[in-house]
Amino acid sequence: MKTVTVLGSTGSIGCSTVDLLHQAGEDVAVKVLVGGRNAKLLAEQARALRAEQAVIADESLVGELKALLADTDVKVSGGRSAVIEGAAVPADWTMAAITGAAGLEPTLAAVRNGATVALANKEALVCAGDVMLRAIAEAKATLLPVDSEHNAVFQAMADRQEAQVEKIILTASGGPFRTATLEAMEAATPAQALKHPTWSMGAKISIDSASMFNKGLEVIEAARIFDLPEECIDVLVHPQSVVHGMVQYTDGSLIAQMGSADMRIPIAHCLAWPERMPTTSPRLDLAQFGTLVFEKPDLARFPALRLARQALREGGAASTILSAANEIAVEAFLNNRIGFLDIPRIVENAMDTLGAPVIEDLAAVLHWDAEARRVAREGIVRKAA
Amino acid sequence: MKTVTVLGSTGSIGCSTVDLLHQAGEDVAVKVLVGGRNAKLLAEQARALRAEQAVIADESLVGELKALLADTDVKVSGGRSAVIEGAAVPADWTMAAITGAAGLEPTLAAVRNGATVALANKEALVCAGDVMLRAIAEAKATLLPVDSEHNAVFQAMADRQEAQVEKIILTASGGPFRTATLEAMEAATPAQALKHPTWSMGAKISIDSASMFNKGLEVIEAARIFDLPEECIDVLVHPQSVVHGMVQYTDGSLIAQMGSADMRIPIAHCLAWPERMPTTSPRLDLAQFGTLVFEKPDLARFPALRLARQALREGGAASTILSAANEIAVEAFLNNRIGFLDIPRIVENAMDTLGAPVIEDLAAVLHWDAEARRVAREGIVRKAA
Repeated sequence: MKTVTVLGSTGSIGCSTVDLLHQAGEDVAVKVLVGGRNAKLLAEQARALRAEQAVIADESLVGELKALLADTDVKVSGGRSAVIEGAAVPADWTMAAITGAAGLEPTLAAVRNGATVALANKEALVCAGDVMLRAIAEAKATLLPVDSEHNAVFQAMADRQEAQVEKIILTASGGPFRTATLEAMEAATPAQALKHPTWSMGAKISIDSASMFNKGLEVIEAARIFDLPEECIDVLVHPQSVVHGMVQYTDGSLIAQMGSADMRIPIAHCLAWPERMPTTSPRLDLAQFGTLVFEKPDLARFPALRLARQALREGGAASTILSAANEIAVEAFLNNRIGFLDIPRIVENAMDTLGAPVIEDLAAVLHWDAEARRVAREGIVRKAA
Repeated sequence: MKTVTVLGSTGSIGCSTVDLLHQAGEDVAVKVLVGGRNAKLLAEQARALRAEQAVIADESLVGELKALLADTDVKVSGGRSAVIEGAAVPADWTMAAITGAAGLEPTLAAVRNGATVALANKEALVCAGDVMLRAIAEAKATLLPVDSEHNAVFQAMADRQEAQVEKIILTASGGPFRTATLEAMEAATPAQALKHPTWSMGAKISIDSASMFNKGLEVIEAARIFDLPEECIDVLVHPQSVVHGMVQYTDGSLIAQMGSADMRIPIAHCLAWPERMPTTSPRLDLAQFGTLVFEKPDLARFPALRLARQALREGGAASTILSAANEIAVEAFLNNRIGFLDIPRIVENAMDTLGAPVIEDLAAVLHWDAEARRVAREGIVRKAA
């Protein structure tokens, strides 16, 4: 029996994970569920999965959660330090799915247990890559990638011939502006940018998908997960989003993982790894798709890819700065304060201003994250003026 | 260091194997090279690879081969029994690439060494499947599939989760008649049928590709290699021949192997397995292809697929009969004695006439092979009359 913890259990990835834990049934014992603000859902999950602990990040909701679970043995707590304590409870397998900077410390706490961590928090590797990788190495923890592209690459490496990997290929849907002109992109509204062709997602990641910053962040993430240099990570635009990732081997073989747009597939892969488990996810019918298209991305219209590669080459805090500045720029775009193509301009300016300072610990990460946000905000004020 | 034998070293697969053995260099020691009729090429290969033995199937050429290798230590022999003796010399890895019925006994001899056999001889599993599988099990030999489709499926099973395989998918180019009407196929000439769109191959296999008998034989082969029932083996028409084979897992993941149309890729995979080795094979550039198409095969125009599935379900000698009758029918079509769509008719008639008798040994295989040829010839005489 495997002991399991879910950090971020009430979010989208968390709910899919909980769904699969039900399917896994007697094979898993749930230690800790950590939720954000949805006390009702967290209580339901903890009750149904007979979790040992339920922790809610918003301390003001502890009372509500306690009341909801009063008739159970579930131990209830809340607030920032309770979240980190919950993440530190030893478990064989942890889903790290608290998004944003808030997920960094709990993810590090889980990693330090030296067990298996399924990582769905991009920031952990993009913003705090060096710190996270050091913690993983020190704790001898196992990192499993949840992101569909990285999980695909991981699946395509099942024969563990890392030394024979020539390059990996991450696919990108191309977003709503795949065939748009530069002029149309310059004038794009938030409503246009939010229309993602294949995945249904939140606003931030939808804009990142439209700008291809999402793919840029994934290139950085991939470099860290698979310990590959920037030039060994290709991006291919593939509007059908059927092939999620590929590995090119030195013998000429290209191994690809495909699947329908259902995050339960990569999550199930992480949960059952190194075995597999059945899911009810819809099966891919290639004959129904008929045609799969692959194109090189256009770096002129999608500077995010160029900036991400630059950040990777520069190392240090460059990725932290890129990610933080992008967050601020996306927010400003969604509030109609800057244009769509101003997003990469704001990011590039922050990168040029701050460079690539060395990062030693989480405090340094948070410092340069804050600095990048400050410089980005200044850039936005100048644009808007 | 791995000891290696190549059965059929002067054929197309054999030459590619020899090419890769040169690349493998000091990692391999060549025990036996078996060639058919090309003494000059066999002598060159044996000399360059410092083989211990060179065996030529055509006994009349032993003298020539001896003369060509007179200044070396290579032991030379020739004739049918020398081929089988050569195959029986213990080697860690054997490429079994002698085509047709002539390859059965040497392949069995290699299997009985209990080592690793890379199998490129379709007949071994299609015509003598039960006999071959029994020999493999008894000798605890390891079978590696060389055929590009089966090798692709094998690569896609690298995580060894056979119990979680839902189905496998073999791709087919669709051949020259992929978009032809039934009427056009009825009137097709050998010249039209020989025009294979992607692979350059011999006449027999080109016609088999046009009729999709080749894919039917591969379905039978796959059922034996992967121990799967007929309904778990799908065929998808994929004119670009870029994706060679796929595995659908119970978790919703579909793993595919792709590559350029170069047999050195699957051969290298077998040679280095469970590792990988570098090759100079051209790398696949999906952006250059742009579009990959997948379609369900049309069983009305390609009855071969239906007949192969029927043979698999019936078991016993049914596959032997299908394969032998098809060989005779293809020969008659190439000689303009019957029409293109008469090929499956002749095969179906032989299957209906002879049924699915039990097969106990190689003698029974050869008996039903001969019977099928006799019935097919009778059918051709009736058609031609």
